[in-house]
Amino acid sequence: DPNLKIFSLNSNPALAQEIVEFIGVELGKCSVTRFSDGEVQINIEESIRGCDVYIVQSTSGPVNEHLMELLIMIDALKRASAKTINVVIPYYGYARQDRKARAREPITAKLVANLLETAGTTRLITLDLHAPQIQGFFDVPIDHLLGVPILGEYFKKKGFDKENLVIVSPDHGGVTRARKLADRLKAPIAIIDKRRPRPNVSEVMNIVGNVDGKIAILIDDIIDTAGTITLAAKAITESGAKEVYACCTHPVLSGPALERIGNSIIKELVVTNSIALAPEKKTDKVVELSVAPLIGEAIIRVHEEQSVSTLFD
Amino acid sequence: DPNLKIFSLNSNPALAQEIVEFIGVELGKCSVTRFSDGEVQINIEESIRGCDVYIVQSTSGPVNEHLMELLIMIDALKRASAKTINVVIPYYGYARQDRKARAREPITAKLVANLLETAGTTRLITLDLHAPQIQGFFDVPIDHLLGVPILGEYFKKKGFDKENLVIVSPDHGGVTRARKLADRLKAPIAIIDKRRPRPNVSEVMNIVGNVDGKIAILIDDIIDTAGTITLAAKAITESGAKEVYACCTHPVLSGPALERIGNSIIKELVVTNSIALAPEKKTDKVVELSVAPLIGEAIIRVHEEQSVSTLFD
Ligand SMILES: Nc1ncnc2c1ncn2[C@@H]1O[C@H](COP(=O)(O)O)[C@@H](O)[C@H]1O
Ligand SMILES: Nc1ncnc2c1ncn2[C@@H]1O[C@H](COP(=O)(O)O)[C@@H](O)[C@H]1O
Repeated sequence: DPNLKIFSLNSNPALAQEIVEFIGVELGKCSVTRFSDGEVQINIEESIRGCDVYIVQSTSGPVNEHLMELLIMIDALKRASAKTINVVIPYYGYARQDRKARAREPITAKLVANLLETAGTTRLITLDLHAPQIQGFFDVPIDHLLGVPILGEYFKKKGFDKENLVIVSPDHGGVTRARKLADRLKAPIAIIDKRRPRPNVSEVMNIVGNVDGKIAILIDDIIDTAGTITLAAKAITESGAKEVYACCTHPVLSGPALERIGNSIIKELVVTNSIALAPEKKTDKVVELSVAPLIGEAIIRVHEEQSVSTLFD
Repeated sequence: DPNLKIFSLNSNPALAQEIVEFIGVELGKCSVTRFSDGEVQINIEESIRGCDVYIVQSTSGPVNEHLMELLIMIDALKRASAKTINVVIPYYGYARQDRKARAREPITAKLVANLLETAGTTRLITLDLHAPQIQGFFDVPIDHLLGVPILGEYFKKKGFDKENLVIVSPDHGGVTRARKLADRLKAPIAIIDKRRPRPNVSEVMNIVGNVDGKIAILIDDIIDTAGTITLAAKAITESGAKEVYACCTHPVLSGPALERIGNSIIKELVVTNSIALAPEKKTDKVVELSVAPLIGEAIIRVHEEQSVSTLFD
């Protein structure tokens, strides 16, 4: 369909290339560079008048650069008479600032939603929002994809004995996600139940569920500094888990993350390419799975006005 | 007035400090840092409920970082029940992308205006917009300050012989600005009239007006890579100017700027602190004038609902 155009900005060019190969089209031609003073310069090098345009860009680090590239691209497409502007954000940054946890905090996840709509977004396709409520921050339609089926497929192929497997959520917030992975692997779940008995006393790591003698798969949506996941790995090992895997959709992996994972008991860290990993982050322990078929299929279905939710069956 | 609060973000802390000293208040307490993954983290450390808040932040380089800090701060203030959110942007970045010069270009100056309003800006105070038309990109009230009076004062004190002085615009776009400076110094103007006789032939620098034997002051709004201004200095020297000064409001000074100015005939480069100069940019030739009294006075007048335009008399 000549009216379908897919552009990549600078955050995930390899993923965007995989997506267009999956769909069987070419990437739209554009250059996204900087002027001498650092301002974003965008040249769209083909007409997109009347087209359904998809832009692939995660708001991963450097988050402010990637977000501004995206907003400026949306502005340019709007002024160039695109029919629809479908923003594909495999990793939606600033998602952890999704509520006022303390007085006078911003709600940056909502600000970003407003900025994307103001610029001219007509639809959003995204993956594993840190909180599903962020969908409600938008007034335009959203397709919210999930990483669990991809992670589940990977672990299924390992052929672990179900009797010996347990899926572990590293905190209360992630139990629903752990349950979804457990359903796919027909395994039970366990939960790391952190609590602080009194203020100014260190946290107690209690484990709800049985991990003794088992192969444990820890699952989270984002692994950032890897503090949570490596402490969880330690706690379940102390409770008898005999092998520990960790997985997440979004490998932010900032600061001490790689060192912590390297030094931990974790055998494999299984992630997706929603965030492009810098070469130095691709250590032996890291296994990267592609979300290109998932996103490619979602784009085809959105473009053909078919349901996207059946993608998760 | 306890209802007047002035905050500084990270682009111009020294200027913000000068502004509050001029007004006789303290800076509002807030910290603007980064999370481990680079996302902006803002903590406003005092109540601003019901207050008239002013935020001092240029969108100078790193422009995307400074702009996102500003938008997130506006979001936080809005949610913390500020009565008014007055954004003070001494240097408004992205101003050169103010029209579609070619097909499918963004109009980023307008996008930024929309983003600022969406975040919650209720008023803008700014200085020498690259094009005064950018005022019309906003629906909220704007106070548009001018750098010319400050630059004019500086050159007046030099006591140049008026008969021997000429104010030079380096291009057609800057003639109105040169005229304003000339009025203050009671000097005539000249214009560098660049034109390309035929396509693919290099530009001819023709000078309209008389510079022979004179002290020339080149004036522009922005000096970025300094190509325009140093070529202009060369051209007027070849036409007999015996001493060349250059001045501008906004010293972007990116890429080869300092080398070009260093190697040029320009005797002094007179700029304002609308953009904080990195220490290595403060060379012998650079003279920095403060806009703190101008902005401070504008804030006082806006807060007391007095006219700001008389500031330029
Ligand atoms: N980029 C970030 N890195 C670390 N913490 C963040 C980040 N963004 C937001 N937060 C904080 O993390 C908290 C939310 O974490 P969570 O409980 O995982 O949703 C919020 O209170 C935020 O202040
Ligand atoms: N940061 C920038 N650096 C250099 N040129 C720019 C920048 N932003 C915009 N421009 C271009 O400069 C042109 C406007 O320059 P001017 O004629 O000085 O207004 C526009 O066509 C823009 O494409």
